[in-house]
Formats: sequence, structure tokens, C-alpha cells
Amino acid sequence: MSTAIAAGLGGIVGASNVEIRPAALVPYRTDATFGFSGIPWAVVRPACVEEVSRVLAWANQRGVPVVPRGAGTSLAAGAVPIRGGIVLALTRMNRIVSIDPVDLTAVVQPGVTTQDLARAVGEHGLHYPPDPGSQRVSTMGGNVATNAGGLHGLKYGNTGGYVLGVQAVLADGEVIRAGGRLLKDVAGYDLVRLLTGSEGTLAVLTEMTLALRPAPAASTTALAYFADLESASDAVRGVISAGILPATLEFLDAKCIQSVDAYAHLGLDTTAGAMLLFGDDGSDAEVRRTVSAMAEVMHAHGASSVQVATAAAESEALLTARRCALPALARLGGATMLEDVGVPRSRLPELVRRIDAIAERHKVIMATFGHAGDGNAHPVGCFDPADPGQRARVTAAFDDIFATAVELGGTITGEHGVGAAKLPYLQAQLGRQQIALLARIKHAFDPEGILNPGKLGS
Amino acid sequence: MSTAIAAGLGGIVGASNVEIRPAALVPYRTDATFGFSGIPWAVVRPACVEEVSRVLAWANQRGVPVVPRGAGTSLAAGAVPIRGGIVLALTRMNRIVSIDPVDLTAVVQPGVTTQDLARAVGEHGLHYPPDPGSQRVSTMGGNVATNAGGLHGLKYGNTGGYVLGVQAVLADGEVIRAGGRLLKDVAGYDLVRLLTGSEGTLAVLTEMTLALRPAPAASTTALAYFADLESASDAVRGVISAGILPATLEFLDAKCIQSVDAYAHLGLDTTAGAMLLFGDDGSDAEVRRTVSAMAEVMHAHGASSVQVATAAAESEALLTARRCALPALARLGGATMLEDVGVPRSRLPELVRRIDAIAERHKVIMATFGHAGDGNAHPVGCFDPADPGQRARVTAAFDDIFATAVELGGTITGEHGVGAAKLPYLQAQLGRQQIALLARIKHAFDPEGILNPGKLGS
Ligand SMILES: Cc1cc2nc3c(=O)[nH]c(=O)nc-3n(C[C@H](O)[C@H](O)[C@H](O)COP(=O)(O)OP(=O)(O)OC[C@H]3O[C@@H](n4cnc5c(N)ncnc54)[C@H](O)[C@@H]3O)c2cc1C
Ligand SMILES: Cc1cc2nc3c(=O)[nH]c(=O)nc-3n(C[C@H](O)[C@H](O)[C@H](O)COP(=O)(O)OP(=O)(O)OC[C@H]3O[C@@H](n4cnc5c(N)ncnc54)[C@H](O)[C@@H]3O)c2cc1C
Repeated sequence: MSTAIAAGLGGIVGASNVEIRPAALVPYRTDATFGFSGIPWAVVRPACVEEVSRVLAWANQRGVPVVPRGAGTSLAAGAVPIRGGIVLALTRMNRIVSIDPVDLTAVVQPGVTTQDLARAVGEHGLHYPPDPGSQRVSTMGGNVATNAGGLHGLKYGNTGGYVLGVQAVLADGEVIRAGGRLLKDVAGYDLVRLLTGSEGTLAVLTEMTLALRPAPAASTTALAYFADLESASDAVRGVISAGILPATLEFLDAKCIQSVDAYAHLGLDTTAGAMLLFGDDGSDAEVRRTVSAMAEVMHAHGASSVQVATAAAESEALLTARRCALPALARLGGATMLEDVGVPRSRLPELVRRIDAIAERHKVIMATFGHAGDGNAHPVGCFDPADPGQRARVTAAFDDIFATAVELGGTITGEHGVGAAKLPYLQAQLGRQQIALLARIKHAFDPEGILNPGKLGS
Repeated sequence: MSTAIAAGLGGIVGASNVEIRPAALVPYRTDATFGFSGIPWAVVRPACVEEVSRVLAWANQRGVPVVPRGAGTSLAAGAVPIRGGIVLALTRMNRIVSIDPVDLTAVVQPGVTTQDLARAVGEHGLHYPPDPGSQRVSTMGGNVATNAGGLHGLKYGNTGGYVLGVQAVLADGEVIRAGGRLLKDVAGYDLVRLLTGSEGTLAVLTEMTLALRPAPAASTTALAYFADLESASDAVRGVISAGILPATLEFLDAKCIQSVDAYAHLGLDTTAGAMLLFGDDGSDAEVRRTVSAMAEVMHAHGASSVQVATAAAESEALLTARRCALPALARLGGATMLEDVGVPRSRLPELVRRIDAIAERHKVIMATFGHAGDGNAHPVGCFDPADPGQRARVTAAFDDIFATAVELGGTITGEHGVGAAKLPYLQAQLGRQQIALLARIKHAFDPEGILNPGKLGS
């Protein structure tokens, strides 16, 4: 098959942009998810929408799977070619097509990284808020395809809130455009939002029109320690009740605080039971007002200490504590599995309490951090990859955690997506009828089932 | 058929909730759209999701059309039973199920009016921002089914941005739930957003979970007059460049100003070429800061006068100028047809200029108002309904206006929806391929085509 692909697609994208040498394919077997891999038949790197269209038409006629891929930072095995086929790497299509400071829009190709976009719009005094932890390398195609979240979702929402329009190629090679440089457009079903978060299973995104905002003049981060996650959660409740929806409201549990401090030597209070990172952005006066109001709320809810950054560098340092939680935890066992459950904000303390009990029951090392304002928790299981028993216990613990999230009115994935990793758990959340409906929607877009098979809609 | 429906459905919803007497059906022939009507076979008023489910299962087995209906304020003939069938009136299901001040959510049945929701959450110090002009009577089911906009979309977005979860009944009577009291949930295709704006053609919405915000402490409205819409548009551009995304940024053209003043005697400057209503909400200090910054921008862009409300009542009075534009214009000809085109914000002056030229060419009275911040314009054709020639000329003018909007990278409907009224124009915007895709999506939900036939997806 690989040779047929090279012959068939070399004429479309140029021979140098079709890779079939086994060694060169190795990096495309996996993404950032532990324990999932596949065998790609080829990697194809199109340069433009026409090439994407011709590649898909070719594959569709032959029933060859096509796995769209950005940076491969998926944590749900979304970019793993579990059924083989072509990995369609979109990284060559990395042009920022335009930035419009009046319409407050940017038009980008899928391979642009989140950080490059954020920087480029920053030079125009504009702001693209979604900032997943992977932003230095993750692509906008991947961010939109997964509806990625970030550290400022409570105030600013997720990637989906910023997608105004898309150009996309359907499985048979047809090119469609939905939405545009428009804040309001209700002509037709909302294909923009249906394709957002569709994880490469409905169409390949070849261009996106994104909403921007004016850059906030100021921003500040602060930190508060609590005896336990309950009091931290009460403080979150207090912030909301005070009428504040701040830009940042993140939590780390005790194990995370200890690991992060051992890893990054930030001088954190390793005796604390929980830590909240909070902050806001906006006009200078507004930021000062909300952050000091939040600091008061923290004290009123028993924070043992509150520390407000006084300079940008200090703000960044505080955010580092949150950003390096994952690498820090990776050192505890050797390997980590990171999960991504969500519950209504009010139920977060109960979720984390139950996560701890589940970890104990299964005898696994597990620590949890996440988005306190959004009710989105990332429990991390740390284990020795050489010990299959440990790994099996982490998996079993996650099974229980997924069931718990659903039981609490929550979700098995708040932001990372379903991919191949979470597909077996989806029916427990959505029910059999809805799984069948998703399959019918998938069929409406991709009747041959070539787009990212074995993922959503399968 | 009507007798069969009464017999079949009386047992489900109770005989008194099935109406088949011709006189009683008259109000259900039309909605708020001029010139569209149908003949309903029956009106059925379910009390709960189980009844909706059983009604749909019954209709689906018999291929009987079902037209979901809220308040019937559609301006796109969305609620008109153009193929007959059952009008499914959801107004009995009008309970606010819960309001949660920690999760910042409200759960509502579809028949709750927008205003009742806004008031109820207001009592908890919370805020539901979308406020369509029809808010006193429009239902939340209708608002979600059309993804309705309002007067504060620039800052707060449209209805769709507030829909976190839905319970919905599919054509065959199956009940699904998507989303929930969650800010982040990417488990599956985004059915919440696909059903939002689907205009009763994919499913019947029986419950919605909506996001709320803390109520802003203060809000102010102001008004500025300009010599023409170009300078008003330059001022809008200036506001955005100053880094402000205000809650209100609306425009009225000269004809609207004159009509509104003749109608409501508000003492407007009837010599002005254009008027901007602008305002903001938030903390007291923030509102004062942004509104005075905007007032400066208005002056800098040649506003002949700027008037900032100093009290809530005055703010309301200014907003009245915008809210009564439509009834005011209705007096010019006798009947009005209101349209709803959208373009990128930067192209709004060009759009309005071309609307004026088109009106002149077709010799029709047309005035335009709308959402300057959103690029969404409502040209209103005023005519004598007894004069078929006048009416035909208005229709011809709108044909040209739709084509112009699409040519400018815009949409034939920014917020009112497609319904039966705009369906003939949809292909010019979306293309043949995408129309076919919409029909395939429709088929995935409603294979017998019973839900609101002759509308989206047909
Ligand atoms: C250290 C780290 C931190 C992270 N932090 C976050 C976080 O804070 N929030 C969050 O949401 N996620 C986070 N993630 C997960 C991941 O980075 C996101 O899902 C990101 O959006 C993936 O982007 P990517 O370019 O790497 O896409 P890939 O991993 O290459 O692909 C992801 C999915 O999108 C599809 N896809 C990619 N490009 C396209 C396209 N052009 N058209 C159609 N489908 C396409 C793929 O088929 C796949 O299903 C993190 C991951 C890591 C490793
Ligand atoms: C004076 C006036 C001002 C207006 N201002 C605005 C405005 O500012 N912004 C704006 O967007 N619109 C505006 N509109 C249009 C209209 O009010 C909105 O579209 C509104 O959302 C319709 O609500 P409704 O309850 O009247 O729905 P209906 O008119 O009864 O129905 C509208 C559509 O929704 C479907 N539907 C209704 N309920 C359900 C349900 N439970 N499940 C599935 N489908 C359902 C119907 O089938 C139909 O297709 C205005 C209309 C008027 C008359």
C-alpha cells in the first residue's frame, strides 16, 4: 500500500512530501498519549487546500484511512493512526493569512502554532485568549479540532468561542466554507461549531477565521494556600458570589504542590492542602480592584497565606507552578497518564475527594490539578511503565473516575477530547441512542469512514 | 386528518390540549413574518417531555409534519406550518426548573419567556445577557432554536454562547441530553451547538441549561449624532481601536431617526445623518471610564452632539429610540418587511450605502438600523400592503440586498434565521455542496422529514 500511496500522492503534493520510509514514520505512530500507537502507511504533507482536496479524493476512492495531524500533542490518542492509513500532516500550511484590527479577526492556516498566533496578534495590540498548556507547539488546526481549553477559560471561554468561520475539506475532497468574518451568522446549521471539536473525523480544517479581542492593558496573578480543597472550593464559590469572573482560577492539590516544588524549586508552601492560582486582566484599575477583592475573599475563606504578584515577571513565576505540574508529576513514577474529567463547578471538591479515595483503593499514586473556575480536573496517575501491574491499576482507577464524573453530572473529557483513548467510555456518558446519532452525523460527512477511523463517530 | 390527530393525540396530551377547530387555529397560521401563512391541521400543547416524545413518535409513524412553536415571533416564517401538520405549541412548558448561583446556570423549559428568565435570575443578582427585541414574549425555546441575538451582542455574544446543555426529542420520539451544567465538555460532536439555531428542524428542545453571569453593578447608555453613516462607522472603528468592546453599539440611519422621533417624540435631532447608541456595563468606575472614553472617540470622529445618560431612566429612554424603530417605521407605509443581513463590521457603511442605492433604484421606502458593533443591519421596507406593485418592489430590492451582503463576505441572516422566508436565498450564500450536506445532517436526525418541513435542511 505504501508504494501505491507514494506513487498516487507524490503527483499531488510532490514526492518529497510523501514519506513512506519506516524509520521516518516512527514519530507518527504516537501522539502525546501514553500507551497508544498505530502504524502509518505514509505521511503526506500538503501545501494548500487544493492538495488536501486531491489527497482526500484519492483516499476516499480507495477507502484509505486519513488521520489529520497538527503537532501531535493530543492527550486522547486523537492523532494516532490506530487503523493505519495516511497521516495528513498539516504543519506546512502554517501561514497567518491576515489580521484585521477593525473586524477583530485573524485568518490562519491550520499549521500555525497557538503561540505564533498569540504573538502576531499581540503585535497589533490584540489578544487571542485560548492558551492550552501545549501552546508553544500545538497547532490552531489541532486546537479547533479539539475545541481546546486553556488557563483563562472561566473569563474567556474555550477555543470554540473564537471560531467564526472555517474552510474545510470533506472526505470526498469537496471544499466548504462556513461562517466568516462575521460576529453573527445563522444561515444554516452551525457547521462551524459542529466541526469545532470534531477531532478530524468529519472534515479536514484548512483555514480558520478567529475572533480576537483588544489586548488587556494589565494582568496580575496571585496565589493562595488552604488547609484543604474544600476551603479552596469555598473560596472559589466566594469569588463567584462576589460577582467576579476572573481570568485565572486554577487549583493544585497537596501532591501537586509538593511535586512542583521539588521539581521547580519555587518555594511553595509544601505543607498546604491546596493552592489556588487566581488573577485577572483588564484596565489597570479594574485588575487592582478585582484581584484585591479576590484576595480578601481568599482570606475570608481561611487562606493561610495570599501572595499577589507585583510585577509581570512575578505573575509568570506563579503561573509556572501551574504550567509545570505535569512534568513535575512525571518524575514521581516515570510515566504519567493524565485525565480530564469535568463536573459542575459546585461539585469539584466532591470529585477530587472521590478521586483521592479511588486512588487509595487502587493503590496508585495520583495527584490532581485543574481549572477550579471551570470544574475541570486533571487527575494524573504516576507509575512505573515497566510494571504492568501498576499501569493496570491506574487504568482501573481511571475507569472509576470516569464513572464518578458522569455520576456527578459531569463529563469524561472537559477539553482533551475523545480520540481513541476515551471512545470506550463515551457511551456511559451519552447513552446508546446518542452514540448512534453521532454515527449518523459522521456518515452524513464521511460515508466511507476514511476520516480518522476508530475515533468519534465510529 | 384533524379528527385522526384529535383522537390519536388527545390520549397523550389530554383532549383539551389538542385544538382542531378552524377558528382556533387561525393564530397559528402565521408568525411575525409578513406574507407567509400555512394551514395547521391541529395545535397540540404538551405538558412535559414524555408527552412531546409520544406526540413525535405518533407523528413520525404517520409522516405527519410537526412545527415546534414558541411565541411565534419569528421574522423568517420559521414557525409557519407551510406544509400543514401539527403545530406543537410549547408554551405550557414554562417552568424555570432551577437557578444555581454557584454554577452560574439556569435550567429552563422551552416556554419560559426571555424576560421572565432575565427577571428571575436578576433576583439572584445574576444576569442573562441575550435580549432580543421580542424579549417580552419570545420563548427561550425559540431563542435557542434561532440562536437569537440582542442589543448587547458585541460584548456578550448571542444566545448560542449561553447554551450549556439541552434535552431534546428526536423525530422518532427518542429523548437525548447533550452538555449540562458544565463550562467545558468535549465528549462527542457538539450537539448543543448544532441544535442551537436549528430552527425546529432537527429536534424539539424540551429543556435548556443556560450560562449566567454576575449582574453588572452599573450600566449607562449614551447617544451621538453624525452627519452621515460613514463618520458614525469611523467612530465605531475608533472605539474598537481604543480597545473597548462595549455592551451597546447600535445605529439608526436618518430615516429611522426621523420616523422614531415622529412616533415617540423623543426630541431626537432629526437633521442628523446617523445616530449611534453606545453604552457599557460593569463596575461603576469601569462604566464611567469606558463611556467617557467612547464619548471622546465620538467627538474626535465629528459627532455633532453626544449625550450621556446620567440616570437609569434616561438610559432606558435612549434605548427606547432603538427599540421602537420597527413600530415607528411600520407607520410609514402600513406594512413592513424587516431584513437581517450581516457583513464584517468594517463593511457596514458600504452595505448601508448600497442598501440606500438599491432602495432608490427600486423606488421603495427603506430605512436601516442595527447592530453597528456586530455588522448586523436591519433594512426595513415600508409599503402599502394593498398595493401589490409596492410589495413586489420591496421583495426585488431585498433580493439585491441579499446578493450584496453575500458579495461583501456577509450573510443573508445575522440573527433571525432562515425559516421558510430565507430558504430560497440560502444556496447563494452556502453553495450547492453545503446545502446537500445540510440535507444529509437533517436526514441523520429526521429521516422521515417530519420536523418543520420546508425549512432548513429541506
Ligand atoms: C503538555 C501538554 C499540555 C496540554 N494542555 C492542554 C490544555 O491546557 N488544554 C487542552 O485543551 N489541551 C491540552 N493539551 C492537549 C493538546 O495539546 C490539545 O488537544 C491540542 O489542541 C492539540 O493540538 P495539536 O496541533 O497537537 O493536534 P494533534 O494532536 O495533532 O491532533 C489532535 C486532534 O485534532 C485533529 N486535527 C489536527 N489538525 C486538524 C485539522 N487541520 N483538521 C482536522 N482535524 C485536525 C487530529 O486528527 C486529532 O484528532 C495538552 C497537551 C500536552 C502534551
Ligand atoms: C418585534 C420583534 C423584535 C425582534 N427582535 C429580535 C432580535 O433582536 N434578535 C433576534 O435574533 N430576533 C428578533 N426577533 C425574531 C424572534 O423574536 C426571534 O427569532 C425569537 O427567538 C423567536 O422566539 P419565539 O419563541 O417567538 O419562537 P417562534 O417564532 O415560535 O419559533 C421560531 C423558530 O424556532 C423554532 N422553535 C421554537 N420553539 C422551539 C423548541 N422548543 N424546539 C425546537 N424548535 C423550536 C420554531 O419551529 C421556529 O423555527 C424579533 C421579532 C419581533 C417580532
